Amino acid sequence: MASYSTADIASWERFYRANFINSLTGFKSVNLIGTVNTAGQVNLGVFSSIVHIGSNPALIGYINRPLKAAPHTFANIQSTGIYTINHIHPSFVQQAHQTSAKYEEGISEFDEVGLTPEFRDGIAAPFVKESLVKYALSLQEIIPIKLNDTFLVIGEVMAVHIDHDIVAVDGFIQLDNTDTVCSNGGDGYYKATLINRFEYAKPGKIAQTLPVAGE
Amino acid sequence: MASYSTADIASWERFYRANFINSLTGFKSVNLIGTVNTAGQVNLGVFSSIVHIGSNPALIGYINRPLKAAPHTFANIQSTGIYTINHIHPSFVQQAHQTSAKYEEGISEFDEVGLTPEFRDGIAAPFVKESLVKYALSLQEIIPIKLNDTFLVIGEVMAVHIDHDIVAVDGFIQLDNTDTVCSNGGDGYYKATLINRFEYAKPGKIAQTLPVAGE
Repeated sequence: MASYSTADIASWERFYRANFINSLTGFKSVNLIGTVNTAGQVNLGVFSSIVHIGSNPALIGYINRPLKAAPHTFANIQSTGIYTINHIHPSFVQQAHQTSAKYEEGISEFDEVGLTPEFRDGIAAPFVKESLVKYALSLQEIIPIKLNDTFLVIGEVMAVHIDHDIVAVDGFIQLDNTDTVCSNGGDGYYKATLINRFEYAKPGKIAQTLPVAGE
Repeated sequence: MASYSTADIASWERFYRANFINSLTGFKSVNLIGTVNTAGQVNLGVFSSIVHIGSNPALIGYINRPLKAAPHTFANIQSTGIYTINHIHPSFVQQAHQTSAKYEEGISEFDEVGLTPEFRDGIAAPFVKESLVKYALSLQEIIPIKLNDTFLVIGEVMAVHIDHDIVAVDGFIQLDNTDTVCSNGGDGYYKATLINRFEYAKPGKIAQTLPVAGE
């Protein structure tokens, strides 16, 4: 095994370092965040830093890069307080990735990449029509991370749209059944296959596998 | 598609809600965090909330649940300032999951589940010998999330151990080549398969696929 120190990492060319550190954290949830600005202009961006904060209340976070690098989604969430998170599937991986291009504020990424904005339930932010698992969030808190000028943006789940059939009797959503995609690094998109579910672990006896839907 | 509101979610039985919200965020990076307390007692826990904060400096975060639910890893990181993050592979998924059992502080999860602590490079925290991709972090900041009494714990990468062969020429670590596992919900473990890598996206032309190692 090779070993790399902080000094080694700091010495690397910046794209090499970004690829390496971005993949070091493991496979990631990758999603499209839909927003609208105060003039009604829709925006769509791909984010791979969605993180579970808690289930009760249902809080979900994401890391926004420094404002100079990623201004539009952040500004729209700040001004409207509402955004959507949409799972990505293999049929539109390339379009999803393309939303990472730096389009001007007046441009709709939906139009540019060929995805369809969908407004439902009186929620101001657009969902992605092509997505099979999607939810809207109401902004709860923006926490600045001073170490590198990023932000932890936390929202509460206010509306979920999903096929009821894919939710197991215990609430587990078996995301391989919806072909939800995950990512690695900044540009690798992956399909996931279930190895096993395990029962709730307790000391003294190793947790056994759980039956899964269809078995 | 079914729709669920904040009120629906709040009304659900707590394990159903936890399963649902935990899988709603998509596939997750799942890892073992290794720590040691001031008395030298090793600790190992499974965490599925690792999040990339930035590449330069190389900062990686994770969400620690409220202290009553998850005290040991957090206390050890606070007192020593050092911890390791270790990727999980199919050969020890069951052992990794078992570290989520609530063992007493004096118990080593390494011993209980059958994994091997490995000390290297003078770093006080234990790595997991069986892991093929692992790194040590030095604590930079603990940010309390007052909304639900959780914490964002941020460290800087101080040592990475990985087979050099699996790092592509551009720094990308193709994690399916190491059989790194990802998770869904609190108890589902998955294998990931590459769909495609895409080039850096720019406005005006849809990003094309990148060649991957072995092609």
